[in-house]
Amino acid sequence: MTIAAKLDELGISLPEAAAPVASYVPIVDVNGFAHVSGQLPFRNGKLITGQLGADLDVEDGMDAARLCGLMILAQLQAADLIEHVDRIVKLGAFVNSTADFIDQPKVANGASDLMFEVFGERGRHARAAVGVPALPLGAAVEVDAIIAITA
Amino acid sequence: MTIAAKLDELGISLPEAAAPVASYVPIVDVNGFAHVSGQLPFRNGKLITGQLGADLDVEDGMDAARLCGLMILAQLQAADLIEHVDRIVKLGAFVNSTADFIDQPKVANGASDLMFEVFGERGRHARAAVGVPALPLGAAVEVDAIIAITA
Amino acid sequence: MTIAAKLDELGISLPEAAAPVASYVPIVDVNGFAHVSGQLPFRNGKLITGQLGADLDVEDGMDAARLCGLMILAQLQAADLIEHVDRIVKLGAFVNSTADFIDQPKVANGASDLMFEVFGERGRHARAAVGVPALPLGAAVEVDAIIAITA
Repeated sequence: MTIAAKLDELGISLPEAAAPVASYVPIVDVNGFAHVSGQLPFRNGKLITGQLGADLDVEDGMDAARLCGLMILAQLQAADLIEHVDRIVKLGAFVNSTADFIDQPKVANGASDLMFEVFGERGRHARAAVGVPALPLGAAVEVDAIIAITA
Repeated sequence: MTIAAKLDELGISLPEAAAPVASYVPIVDVNGFAHVSGQLPFRNGKLITGQLGADLDVEDGMDAARLCGLMILAQLQAADLIEHVDRIVKLGAFVNSTADFIDQPKVANGASDLMFEVFGERGRHARAAVGVPALPLGAAVEVDAIIAITA
Repeated sequence: MTIAAKLDELGISLPEAAAPVASYVPIVDVNGFAHVSGQLPFRNGKLITGQLGADLDVEDGMDAARLCGLMILAQLQAADLIEHVDRIVKLGAFVNSTADFIDQPKVANGASDLMFEVFGERGRHARAAVGVPALPLGAAVEVDAIIAITA
């Protein structure tokens, strides 16, 4: 089954891939690994902003992390790599957090669960989830990725 | 000398590898690199919590970073990779820090020194050490790793 | 054109590569990738300290990020790798930020633009830019890198 068909089956439609800005690009694919830039959570083109522990609760955060994951998939699709994923290797989840918010793993599951839904066993990845005090444009979550690409 | 023998010689006993949670896994080993998920500092099953610059001093932090390093080794052992380490490539050390705590490198040395003790020259790695305002479950330190595995 | 000649043409002179400290090293080059440790911004040997949103403005931050980028180049040169760069794969930019500072991407452009100036298309990279509350020695910015090296 192609990933396109799997996304259809799951009723997932990918967002438009965010355009490259300045001197960096969304993905670099070299030596068997695609490194995906940190993606922000957009819904219908609108950024999800706010801080976990203040403006947002865990459910909001999981939802934002899932949106970051969808943008990672959108970038893979735009780069014609989504059908060539050998393994989701690593996700880095940066959660906009107050000092007393400690549920970063639950928030990051929004992105992690998506990868398993879409890619099955190939979607099981290593992960680091940490709190940060501030993110680009006030985003709630940022997620980057390392993905093994089939030769 | 095997790493098992080296650990014995150093009097180091590894903790039980923390179980995988949700849709992510402790290690993904593909294309010559093992990516290890961010590991937290456990002693006898109890998490070391707190913030550097507030509850904890540099010695506490180094100790916590070393415990993260031991958990990285425990994950390598559980994945049957510990005797196949070609090189510790990179450690990422996230130190739970107040805004005025600036000794993240000293804290991270707790993990770095362990890698050199156990693997010798193969244990010398690149590293990034940064402060963060919050970590999963209130952990004091989180360390992830990239490790080259022999073919 | 060699990178040495390109640096001359651009009027860029690299700083002295910061010496390795403790059990970690500036670069590990294995399996086609050079992983570069997090580099701090030095000008004439003096560290640029302070926090974006408090002591420093966006221009200061971009300048500091560029200095981190120059130190990455200095480390590549010291390791005899600078003429063997196949691709700048990924930059990780950690910006010392107050909770209301949200221009981490502009700050990180200081390093990203440098890579494009020096390496051209090979300098276009994936990137993650996040805020952090504290960095080693009070540094304003820290940047690490993954770089593909020609065989």
